[in-house]
Amino acid sequence: MLALMRIPSVSTDPACAGAVAEAAAFLRDHVTRIGLQGARLIEEGGNPAVYAEWLGAPGAPTILVYGHYDVQPPDPLDLWRSPPFEPTIRDGRVYCRGASDDKGPLWTALAAIEAVLATEGRLPVNVRLLLEGEEEVGSRSLATILQRHAALLRADVLISADGSRWRPDLVSVNTNSRGLCALEFTVETANEDLHSGRYGGAVANAATVLCQMVASLHDADRRVAVAGFFEGLRPPGPQDRAAIAAIDFDEAGFLGEIGALPGAVERGVNMLEAMWLRPTLEINGITSGYSGPGTKTVLPHTASAKITCRLGIGQDPQVVAAAVERHLQAQCPPYARLTVRRGAGGARAYALPDDHPALLAVERMMLALHGERPLHVGVGGTLPISSLIKEHLGMETVMVSYAISDSGVHAPNEFFRLSSFDEGMAAWTLLLPELAAAYAGEGGA
Amino acid sequence: MLALMRIPSVSTDPACAGAVAEAAAFLRDHVTRIGLQGARLIEEGGNPAVYAEWLGAPGAPTILVYGHYDVQPPDPLDLWRSPPFEPTIRDGRVYCRGASDDKGPLWTALAAIEAVLATEGRLPVNVRLLLEGEEEVGSRSLATILQRHAALLRADVLISADGSRWRPDLVSVNTNSRGLCALEFTVETANEDLHSGRYGGAVANAATVLCQMVASLHDADRRVAVAGFFEGLRPPGPQDRAAIAAIDFDEAGFLGEIGALPGAVERGVNMLEAMWLRPTLEINGITSGYSGPGTKTVLPHTASAKITCRLGIGQDPQVVAAAVERHLQAQCPPYARLTVRRGAGGARAYALPDDHPALLAVERMMLALHGERPLHVGVGGTLPISSLIKEHLGMETVMVSYAISDSGVHAPNEFFRLSSFDEGMAAWTLLLPELAAAYAGEGGA
Repeated sequence: MLALMRIPSVSTDPACAGAVAEAAAFLRDHVTRIGLQGARLIEEGGNPAVYAEWLGAPGAPTILVYGHYDVQPPDPLDLWRSPPFEPTIRDGRVYCRGASDDKGPLWTALAAIEAVLATEGRLPVNVRLLLEGEEEVGSRSLATILQRHAALLRADVLISADGSRWRPDLVSVNTNSRGLCALEFTVETANEDLHSGRYGGAVANAATVLCQMVASLHDADRRVAVAGFFEGLRPPGPQDRAAIAAIDFDEAGFLGEIGALPGAVERGVNMLEAMWLRPTLEINGITSGYSGPGTKTVLPHTASAKITCRLGIGQDPQVVAAAVERHLQAQCPPYARLTVRRGAGGARAYALPDDHPALLAVERMMLALHGERPLHVGVGGTLPISSLIKEHLGMETVMVSYAISDSGVHAPNEFFRLSSFDEGMAAWTLLLPELAAAYAGEGGA
Repeated sequence: MLALMRIPSVSTDPACAGAVAEAAAFLRDHVTRIGLQGARLIEEGGNPAVYAEWLGAPGAPTILVYGHYDVQPPDPLDLWRSPPFEPTIRDGRVYCRGASDDKGPLWTALAAIEAVLATEGRLPVNVRLLLEGEEEVGSRSLATILQRHAALLRADVLISADGSRWRPDLVSVNTNSRGLCALEFTVETANEDLHSGRYGGAVANAATVLCQMVASLHDADRRVAVAGFFEGLRPPGPQDRAAIAAIDFDEAGFLGEIGALPGAVERGVNMLEAMWLRPTLEINGITSGYSGPGTKTVLPHTASAKITCRLGIGQDPQVVAAAVERHLQAQCPPYARLTVRRGAGGARAYALPDDHPALLAVERMMLALHGERPLHVGVGGTLPISSLIKEHLGMETVMVSYAISDSGVHAPNEFFRLSSFDEGMAAWTLLLPELAAAYAGEGGA
């Protein structure tokens, strides 16, 4: 595990291309060593994915195990207490970029497979393995990989080693995630920045225009005020409400941890629903005019904003992006020029059916391991693999990661608890026979 | 003139402190050379002002001639066709930083005084000279200079060689300028930027909050919507309206020159009134979140905006700034923390009475020089000297600059027309006896 963590496989940095290739080759060789077969690299225009299989359990179900070996950039470097690609153990944690996202969690799956093969000589289910190298850059070639290698990846269910436990003190399983779409817009009111004395009063201020347009995106109840924005959204059902009600959620404590104040949730919406199921429209950044020290009496001629929307179940990223673009066009005043750029791709939200046999298997495994059934929780973020694999291969996704959400994922001093390694390995070891039992009588894929 | 232009007297750049001192010493020596007396540097904590006098006309009025020798930084350097501090003559223009603002115009006054003294041996009026070195950094120590050296600077009227002709095709004189106040505010919704998936829906977006607050600053008629903002404002009188009506103003052409579109003026307000007399509230810059390439799904925890207000006649900068601050406090939602920083200083608007004897003298001079009476036009910008000298010494200001507003002031390739030098020198030469006549019988200051 530490050897993998040591490789700086930053997918967004071209300078790390060699390290990305090294990590893929390392994993291909490693999975062969632990007893998987047919290990190979799949390249479809981006970083390679690692594939391998063990198909020696005829009649048993087949699971596709997913993880990703690429990591976020380590910046800002000066905030790291130990070098980001020198895995360092302190207080029962290994500190390294990618430790929790996703090298530690995927290693728990590999370690469990290795241990079962070593002791039993066989696995209770058929396993296919897909380790992606582009998760941190939007899984750009994943759809192509899924389409072109559909036969190789066919299975009954995808068990993902990505994600994290929502809270350290709760036994939980992720059953849904939100979708995503992105756009960016610019308003322009003149050809160049102007002297605010000479032109102020006659020429529109691009920063002001932009703010007015952004302000029009939400209403006084903090609800997105874009016509058509909620199209297709499946409202929460009784099971969603029951799952949320089952959680004894400390809203004030949750906000207090990050220095946030209460009152920002859309009126009439439960906070967990707002984070896990409800679409959002967020401004990710705004740029206009002068931002240096002191005063500059400039009248900015241009202003830009970046927007991403998290999407709820049933929403189409392109439909939502089009609705936002129409709203911006309608709100742009006659004295400003508007440019809208729609982000590529986008992803749909994902929801795992509450009665899916693999989910029931995970619940039984967790009951056995922890003595209690897991709560169903959402991931407010977006996991393209879940909706893509559903779309292209018709498979559902169950997430099994024992990383914990406080582990500095994407931030300096990311770590993975050694106890999470033990828990995760035990979980995967117990899960394999539960999955075999869950599908008994149904036949394999 | 070119020797003065060659000195890089950039007041805002500490590296130019030597050049600023050099320019002041150069002017002190030069005004002695042309026949003024008592030349000295006045320092009150900032860059030196140059003072000199010629008081050989007992019974005649005394005028205070004002100009500034400091200049804006030359950046961006790569857009200059010739080095910014190497005065270069092309097509009847001298290109140099500071050529039109204000070294060329102040030199026309000195050249006229020099010529009259050389030919007549005397001036028709008493002259005191004040050349400031901090105009481009807000005239920081000017109030102190005016207070501490009041006796030295006492005169009947201030004739300013700063400013510029509004349009090259119009004979005009500036009779008013707007005031200024500045503030900056920041909203904060959490302790750090957050993952928009994990927290979006539960935590407020600081960029969105800031935009909503900015949007609240104007109403649907583009009128400033801040309670108390217009307090003290003197509405335009019949003379103001007559002056504006006298100008055959091509609004579409004016906007077209800078690539702006019509419709941005406050509803019901004449465009010239909006630019010259009406207060404005401008956003000078906004910063929040991620502004690099592509998408970053961040939820910004902080957002900042810089504001300056141009003020109309009768308004108090501190009262206006306080009104804006109160508005921001009232508009800040409970889930955001607000910090407001008020800018130092500020300046009042200035209006020269239409029947002031020095203005009448300038009108006669212009009629003689150009064959027509000048239109009265405003300067939408702010000239601290006018309101400060009125406040501290009770003097009115008449502006006589033949620089033209298209001369790239504060921008790359600033220039001064050699024809403007000829016009300006002729104007000052004709003005001195007109001023003597205007005050005849009143006695000197």
